[in-house]
Amino acid sequence: MESVDFLICGEILISHPDDSPIHGGAVAVRGDTIVAAGPLSELTKSFVAKKTINRSSGLILPGLINSHTHAAMILFRGLADDLPLKTWLEDHIFPAEARLTSELVALGTELACAEMIRCGTTGFVDMYLFEDSVASVVDRIGLRAWLGEGVFDFPSPSFSSGEEALKETERLMDKWKGHPRITITVDPHTPYTCRPELLKHSQKLAEARDALIVIHLAETEWENAEIRRLCGVSPVKHLDRLGLLGDRLLAIHCVSLSEDDISLLARRDVRVVHCPESNLKLASGVAPVPELLEAGVTVALGTDGAASNNDLDLMSEMDTAAKLHKGIKKDPTLISAPEAFSMVTTRAAKALHREDLGCLSEGYKADLVVVDMNQVHLRPCYNPVSHLVYVARSGDVQDVMVAGRMLMEDRVLTTIDEGRLLEGLSRAVEKLGL
Amino acid sequence: MESVDFLICGEILISHPDDSPIHGGAVAVRGDTIVAAGPLSELTKSFVAKKTINRSSGLILPGLINSHTHAAMILFRGLADDLPLKTWLEDHIFPAEARLTSELVALGTELACAEMIRCGTTGFVDMYLFEDSVASVVDRIGLRAWLGEGVFDFPSPSFSSGEEALKETERLMDKWKGHPRITITVDPHTPYTCRPELLKHSQKLAEARDALIVIHLAETEWENAEIRRLCGVSPVKHLDRLGLLGDRLLAIHCVSLSEDDISLLARRDVRVVHCPESNLKLASGVAPVPELLEAGVTVALGTDGAASNNDLDLMSEMDTAAKLHKGIKKDPTLISAPEAFSMVTTRAAKALHREDLGCLSEGYKADLVVVDMNQVHLRPCYNPVSHLVYVARSGDVQDVMVAGRMLMEDRVLTTIDEGRLLEGLSRAVEKLGL
Repeated sequence: MESVDFLICGEILISHPDDSPIHGGAVAVRGDTIVAAGPLSELTKSFVAKKTINRSSGLILPGLINSHTHAAMILFRGLADDLPLKTWLEDHIFPAEARLTSELVALGTELACAEMIRCGTTGFVDMYLFEDSVASVVDRIGLRAWLGEGVFDFPSPSFSSGEEALKETERLMDKWKGHPRITITVDPHTPYTCRPELLKHSQKLAEARDALIVIHLAETEWENAEIRRLCGVSPVKHLDRLGLLGDRLLAIHCVSLSEDDISLLARRDVRVVHCPESNLKLASGVAPVPELLEAGVTVALGTDGAASNNDLDLMSEMDTAAKLHKGIKKDPTLISAPEAFSMVTTRAAKALHREDLGCLSEGYKADLVVVDMNQVHLRPCYNPVSHLVYVARSGDVQDVMVAGRMLMEDRVLTTIDEGRLLEGLSRAVEKLGL
Repeated sequence: MESVDFLICGEILISHPDDSPIHGGAVAVRGDTIVAAGPLSELTKSFVAKKTINRSSGLILPGLINSHTHAAMILFRGLADDLPLKTWLEDHIFPAEARLTSELVALGTELACAEMIRCGTTGFVDMYLFEDSVASVVDRIGLRAWLGEGVFDFPSPSFSSGEEALKETERLMDKWKGHPRITITVDPHTPYTCRPELLKHSQKLAEARDALIVIHLAETEWENAEIRRLCGVSPVKHLDRLGLLGDRLLAIHCVSLSEDDISLLARRDVRVVHCPESNLKLASGVAPVPELLEAGVTVALGTDGAASNNDLDLMSEMDTAAKLHKGIKKDPTLISAPEAFSMVTTRAAKALHREDLGCLSEGYKADLVVVDMNQVHLRPCYNPVSHLVYVARSGDVQDVMVAGRMLMEDRVLTTIDEGRLLEGLSRAVEKLGL
């Protein structure tokens, strides 16, 4: 018999979006890694666990990955809604962001992490300011994260220029190098807030450090028209000319795309992050996800920041992604439940070049979630993946493990003191004067 | 000092979608009616309560009304998804429905009621089979409901013909007449499943009994084409010719409408029920809700049955309704948060001709909900209605009162034994053999 740290036993195990659910399934974990996943009856033949977590009504699944957010913007959630983008940004968000400090970003990030854990999120991709603070919070709380300091041509509360932001990115790469859960990315903000030179420097840095680049791309028709006006080509083509299109690029949104743009993204193996709820709420439109998938593009899913979505809830984002395209294209077979689920698990892992994430099998990192199925809205259950995508809600998440560490156990966060957090928040918001 | 049965005290009171939230607000209830709603400091000057419910982090709001569902279809949730409508209906839903009995409908309805109460729903409009069973369950559980036996030309598990279903409707009207919470409606299924004669009989019955008529109308382009083929006009115009368009008509879906249809619906004061998530998931499309509102039509919101949506969650339905049209029309000012909220409160009440429902004021029925704001995803809160529509989830609902009776208190259902319900369900599903 082999010793393991954890044996997590459920009613049903979904190890991969396309695999059949295993009734009476379990996962054995040693250190930060999965040693085995399968029927409990088989696992108990080989493993003795230091700690066993029995969830007789539990649906065990791979941890969800939120491939785009601005975590600390949670501080501005609901500050302004239902407004034109320009009014929302210029009259509300920019003035609020001008008051940000690294302490406030740390506070907002902790609040966002609490919400994300409660939604079954085990990893997130963040683009914002004061990312060193974000990294410190993530390090302490135990989530997995890909973090990038926002790079643009104008000064921010954390930097005087885009070049300074790139220097900070390098400093972050040195500081957090080798961290088991934190990866630093290069994050030029958009094609219209970064001069070509800054975009090229970003690419150069990413190549030198073998890092991912994260950029908002083709979010709106306005951006498309603006880049065409300035550069004579679409935003996608513009980035291609500058050498940015490639498999290290995570292109966020991609709403306003031509057929040529779609084939170019596919040919260059760019990874796209779909943020359907943010795109709807900010009136940007609907990304051509079925066409991107058809062309062979890897598509992951993100919530965007909570000031625009207005939440960090991947459970509802999967639901929206699965329903929206069916209705828009009038084809009920588009974006099936397993496909939506893969966008926060296996496809997200592929987008992030992580072969050790996204499913529950031997050798994969132990990032997993247990959903409590013993609830009136989850019975009867003919198809666990359908229930997960179309019915389950973040409040149904019972346990969350990241890298072999329990971050939530039976709905109690183990690394965040929510009471203290909410008190600190209330004082900080008062000081912010929003 | 006046004696009341309940004093419900919250952190914030939203008495009406368009009113400013009242901090430190409370509601005084006597019998099934609200005696007063306003600042607690004022209410305590006039009222002494037999029972006080203190919710220091509670957001008190009018109970939500689900204006379209087929409650018992919850038994078939997740049985089949992501399929063309014809395959879904003919190969999966119809064979399953053929096995229904009044006992199974009662069981499914109870399960649906449990889910709806947990989602903050205080009233629902139901069209299905064996509605006498539905009424008995609703009577016992305490929700408010508008119930109609589905009427169509072909035999159903409960009836041999449409005329028989109309006779049953009359019997139900007699049986449940004067019930304080149950109203019987006349429910011809669709323009394509009811011959013109049956539609006219439905209308005649509704007029004779001063009842509402509920019909699925213009749900798909297929229906539009089919009615044009059979009758030479659109489904809306077809109903107008038969004399069905009027303020007693609750028209469900209304996705496939021409400009003429929209003005006709407005001119006749027909009330429309928008079911955005069902329309998306079944690939019917997106109803022209901004145009309907612009034309002056009263629009309420429904989830549809859980086999198509796949839930009965008005919290997420509001969120979808508020976001979807912004994205489709690329106008972020469409369907503001208060507007989405009004579709499940004040506008729903208007659609149902109930001047005593939909807001929390003196003389209104005591149908109310308390949402627990003391959670990481609901703080900070700059705008309670924004949080309610865009952020709050059904799991945040803490208390539900209908007609002055607590149906859920601090997340515990008072009229449904969930453990027993789930056990009975598990046995019944086994017997159903789905």
